[in-house]
Formats: sequence, structure tokens, C-alpha cells
Amino acid sequence: MFFSGSSQLTLPCERFLVTYRLWGAENEAYAKAKDICLEQTVEFPDELVPDGIIREHILGRIESFAACGENQYESVISYAVATAAGELTQLLNVVFGNISIKPNIRVEHLELPESLLKCFKGPRFGRNGLRELLDVQERPLLFTALKPMGLGSKELAELAYTFALGGIDIIKDDHGLSNQAFCPFEERVKLCAEAVQRANWETGRHSIYMPNITAPFSEIKGRAKLAKDLGAGGYLISPGLTGLDLMREIAEDESLGLPIISHPAFQGSYVLNQSGISHHALFGQIVRLAGGDGTIFPNFGGRFSFSREECEGIVRGTAMPMGILKTIFPCPAGGMSLSSIPESLKIYGKDVIFLVGGGLFMHGPQLIENVRYFRKIIE
Amino acid sequence: MFFSGSSQLTLPCERFLVTYRLWGAENEAYAKAKDICLEQTVEFPDELVPDGIIREHILGRIESFAACGENQYESVISYAVATAAGELTQLLNVVFGNISIKPNIRVEHLELPESLLKCFKGPRFGRNGLRELLDVQERPLLFTALKPMGLGSKELAELAYTFALGGIDIIKDDHGLSNQAFCPFEERVKLCAEAVQRANWETGRHSIYMPNITAPFSEIKGRAKLAKDLGAGGYLISPGLTGLDLMREIAEDESLGLPIISHPAFQGSYVLNQSGISHHALFGQIVRLAGGDGTIFPNFGGRFSFSREECEGIVRGTAMPMGILKTIFPCPAGGMSLSSIPESLKIYGKDVIFLVGGGLFMHGPQLIENVRYFRKIIE
Repeated sequence: MFFSGSSQLTLPCERFLVTYRLWGAENEAYAKAKDICLEQTVEFPDELVPDGIIREHILGRIESFAACGENQYESVISYAVATAAGELTQLLNVVFGNISIKPNIRVEHLELPESLLKCFKGPRFGRNGLRELLDVQERPLLFTALKPMGLGSKELAELAYTFALGGIDIIKDDHGLSNQAFCPFEERVKLCAEAVQRANWETGRHSIYMPNITAPFSEIKGRAKLAKDLGAGGYLISPGLTGLDLMREIAEDESLGLPIISHPAFQGSYVLNQSGISHHALFGQIVRLAGGDGTIFPNFGGRFSFSREECEGIVRGTAMPMGILKTIFPCPAGGMSLSSIPESLKIYGKDVIFLVGGGLFMHGPQLIENVRYFRKIIE
Repeated sequence: MFFSGSSQLTLPCERFLVTYRLWGAENEAYAKAKDICLEQTVEFPDELVPDGIIREHILGRIESFAACGENQYESVISYAVATAAGELTQLLNVVFGNISIKPNIRVEHLELPESLLKCFKGPRFGRNGLRELLDVQERPLLFTALKPMGLGSKELAELAYTFALGGIDIIKDDHGLSNQAFCPFEERVKLCAEAVQRANWETGRHSIYMPNITAPFSEIKGRAKLAKDLGAGGYLISPGLTGLDLMREIAEDESLGLPIISHPAFQGSYVLNQSGISHHALFGQIVRLAGGDGTIFPNFGGRFSFSREECEGIVRGTAMPMGILKTIFPCPAGGMSLSSIPESLKIYGKDVIFLVGGGLFMHGPQLIENVRYFRKIIE
């Protein structure tokens, strides 16, 4: 016996559920499920796992296992809520830490009990809060990006002014703009926020400028605060670059308190392949858990490879019941053309934010006219 | 013309190089390379990219394109150093942000000029610094983990004492231990650090205890400081959960100043598939750039799927010239058995840290004897 007796601590018996897709013959897939139970918790040889609380409670447990296709199985595995320590970082570790390194395993869906969900405040604004902020009740929201990288702050501000004048609701930095010499963060945010406010005075609308605050660990909160002080209306964050928990931190910080939209940069490898995390779980459920008020993803039929079903899965994740967590906006993007909007409207309905970037420049020679056309087809 | 004329700012002309592996027929692969140049920088329709500094300098540039297998091509693409803004987050965004969402593209290798490397201090200790700290000059280092999850702090400390007494150099928390009720961070770190120090007094060795400080954004630095104050000798971090830049921040913080070992949890999806990042670039070069003094990865022949070639690629990344960045230790792990050590020694040589966890418990009924055997085969 290696241990002086495993902990006698009594733990709350609540568990959370993770649905995994497993590939292989039935015996291989079942062996994977059993392996996940060990790998994600005790990371210890099965025969040596101490009896008592560790084997009965800490160890992952197969709740169900069933075929869902040829050489494809779905298994629901439960874990003790106590293993997640009320931390998003550790929750993600239990869900997919070590097994991210093992092939033919995909996280399909999370089901978290109130006792775990209450550790997270989730989105500060959500769909309703963002609609109130923008004073847009019924229609889909319009979203575009300041680009191309390499323009100076003044040129980006001119674009921001034109976009706001034409009726775009949310005008964000392109996600590649951080603090480059050609458009330093403070200068860019100051000029772009002023430009959008100037347009708002002329139109009477409530468009917002949303700078990209994705930055080094020690600078993100400072940039977020600076942006708010300079009149920015929200934050763009790429949690694949900063860590998902950073987005949660910004969302929960009372002193910041602006809406957040999540960008999928550097996260594609999780969803592109058989081994990884489903579009639904990552861009829907996890972004929402991490405090995003909107989640950007490449729309089907654009220049990326997501399917219509995958996009619909994300939309489900933004709105399905998750305790007190607010519903959030899907933000289909990625080479959407204005001509694709009508079909997308049928699928997404009104609770969507359409992100059109380069497409606004492609439609015609006059940017302001293109923007007004975008606005018109939405209305 | 949409722009009032692109920025006249003159930029340093230095560029950094990224080697991408592309899959497809030659024309498809070449189209991917051209697309990467746009997608990772201007994210704008090619025909609308302004001439001048943006097209000539900001836009990615294909430096080479050549077949490297059937329907496989390698392309070296260069980017202006200015696009990375001297930030690890933005550098990773330029290397693999948006295109992480496009299939059949893999980052193979990074080549960064001094002007970019000097933005990063890299590992504080590196191979030589860690050897000095542990007072081990010639042999490979011995590394194990406190497990299984669910043990109390006292039991974990008993294990830590036994491991140190038996001659393990680095005793880390299992990466799943954070701040759970059954082994709270402060209590666990205090008891385990004391246990290792007690063993050191008895053996005259310099073993260190390395707690897992992977934690929510707002708590990581506090835990790192607390651990140092309580006598911990290093930090275990899973940058896939915290964000890679967090590890860089801990490594560069003078007030912390302990060695860091990087754990691959939640990063597997980048390397498991055709689309992603190579083992060499992610677990070798990028972990080193982000300040890890050692990089844990699943050894070939263990319970994970890495090949011998992939592991050798990681080792190259830990030691190849990267400006002033110190060389770091490869830490092969993942179900290594004691019996596999002799063969691994042939491949890794002496500059390696062998991580054996459950294997130490499998060898025989007496843990202390197993540990001494591990030490013996290394010496």
C-alpha cells in the first residue's frame, strides 16, 4: 500500500457531464472512454487507484456509451464538481487537458450543474444588454472591422467615421491591430472612438467602437481601462491568444464593464479536426462561459470551411439553458459577402450580428453607399 | 480609392520567417501560400490592398515554395517584424491566428531575427541555470509528479518526502492539482515544500518542489509569489490553459525568479493533426520563447501517440540557436516506464529531464526502492 489511506474529506457529490465523441472499433472506443476517466483525473494506473473517495468520487465515471455512426461512439463521462476547483482554467483541464494529446477524442457538449455554473458570472451584457446599449431592438446587428493592417490611426478613424455614418452598429479593430508603430493603441483608440462619437452626434444612433485589447498579460487590463476612458464602447479579445480565463476576468471586472466579442484566432486547431472540441462546445458554450457577449466564427459558404450544421451548433450553444448565464450573439463572419446576407437571415433569424469586413469594400466604389446597402438589406 | 493614402510611416524593413507545410495539389498549395500572406496580415481582398508600404511591406511575402512529398509543399513566408508589435500574443497571431481555422496548413518552423527576439527574455534559467540550482552537472535530471488527485496535502507531502529522499531532483504537483478543497494550494505547497526541504537536510541534495500555479488570471501571480515565499523551488504551468504569454510574464518577473516547466495540457489539438503547429515549433521553439526552462511532452513508445521523429524535433527546438535565448530541457513523459529509460538515454543523451509518474509505483511494492532504482539506472 503506497498511501497512508486516502483523504477522508467528504465532498459534495455533484458531478458535471462531458459528452465525448470517440472513433474506433467498439472495444477500442470503450477503452478510450475508460482511459479518459483516469487520464483527466487521477492520471494513475487503474489497478493502483486507491479505493474509497478517490475511486468512487474523484475518478471520472462513464455514465453512458453508445454507437452514433460507423466506428463512432458517444460517451457521457461525469466528473466531481470538486475536481474543477471553481476555476475556468481547471475546469477546461478536466474536460480536455491531457486527452487533447490523444487522438480520436472530441469534446461534443458540456452539461454543468448550478453548483459549478455559479462560479462564473458569464457575459455581462448578453443579447438583451447589447441590444439596449446599441438601442436596436428588433433587427440583426451590423458589425465591421477597421482594416487593412498598415493604415495609420487617422485613416482608420476616417473609416470608422464612414462606417458609423452609414449605420454600422459595432465597428471593431481588425483582430491583427494591437499596438504596432503604424497605429499605436492609445492614438488609434482615441481617434477612432472620437470619430464614432462624432458620427453618432450626426446620426442620432448609438454605434460603438470596439478596439482589440488582445495584448500581453501585464498590459491587457491597462489597455481595457484606457480604452474605456477614451470612449470605446466594447472590447475585442482573441482568447486563443490570451487564454480563455482572461476574457472571463475582463467580463467580471466591475471597473471595465463593456461588452466583449470573442475572436477565434489561434483556436481553429481545436475544431478543424476529428480530435479536438466541437464548434458547439468551443465557440458556443465555452466562449459564453468565459464571458463573451458575442462569438465570432467563420460562416458557412465563406472563405473558411465550417459547415452549416457546425454553425447551427454554435448558435445552439449561444442560447441553450446554462443556469443564469445570459444568452450571447452569434457573429458569423469570414468572407461574408453582402449577397449572402439574405440566406443567412433565414438561418440565424434576428438574434445575430453580421460581421462583414472586406465584403463592404467589394460591393461598390463608394464605401458609404456600400454600408448603407448593408444596412438596408438588414432592415 | 477607399483610403486617403496609406501610411507614409517608414518602418524597419526586417522580417521574420515562418515555414508552413501545405497539403493539396501544387496550384491549391500555392494558392494557400498566397492566401496566408493576406489572411495573416491585411485580411483584405488582394485587389484592394493599397500600393506602397502596405503591399510592399505589411503584406506577407512568399520567400520560397517547394514540394516536400506527394501533394505536400513547404513554403517560407516572411512578415514585417513591425506587424508583431514586440508582443508574444501578436507574434503568435501573425504566425497562426486566422489560418488556424483553415485546413491543411501547419506551422513547421520559426526563424526570428535579433530585432524581434530581443523583445523576449526567454527562459530565466535554461539548461545551465537549472543544473546549477539542482547541483547536478553531468547526468540527466529526475522528475516525478505528486498523484493521484484526491490525496490530501499531508499524503502528498509524504510522497514528496519519499521522492526527495530517494533522489528525485524535481518533484512537481500533478498538473490537475490546483486549489481543490481536498488539497488547497497554500496548505499543499507549505507541506510539500517543507517535506522536500526536510529530505534535503537528510540527503544533502538539492531537490526542489514545483507546485502547479496554473490558475485564473487574477490569481496566478499571487500563487507564484506565495509558493516562492513558502519554499517552492519552481513553477509548473500549463500555458494551453493560461495563455502562453502568462508563462513569459512569470519568467520575466524579477520578484518571482524560479524555474518554470511547461505542461502540454489543452495544447494537443495543435500537434495531433495535419492542420496545426509542428511538435518542434510548439513544444520546442514557442515554449522556449515563452520562457519555459523545460518542456514536458509525451515520449514516443509511451501511452501517447508522438513518434520518435516528432520528439527529436522538439529536442532540436530546445537547443537550436535562437538569439540570446537560453537552451531548455526536453522533459519526455507520458507513461514512461523505468524499463524504457535506457533506450531513451541513447536518444536524448544527458541533457534531458526524465518525468516518470505512475511508472514509479508500478516497478515494485516499495516506493523508496523504486525511486532509488530510477536514480540508479540514470547514474
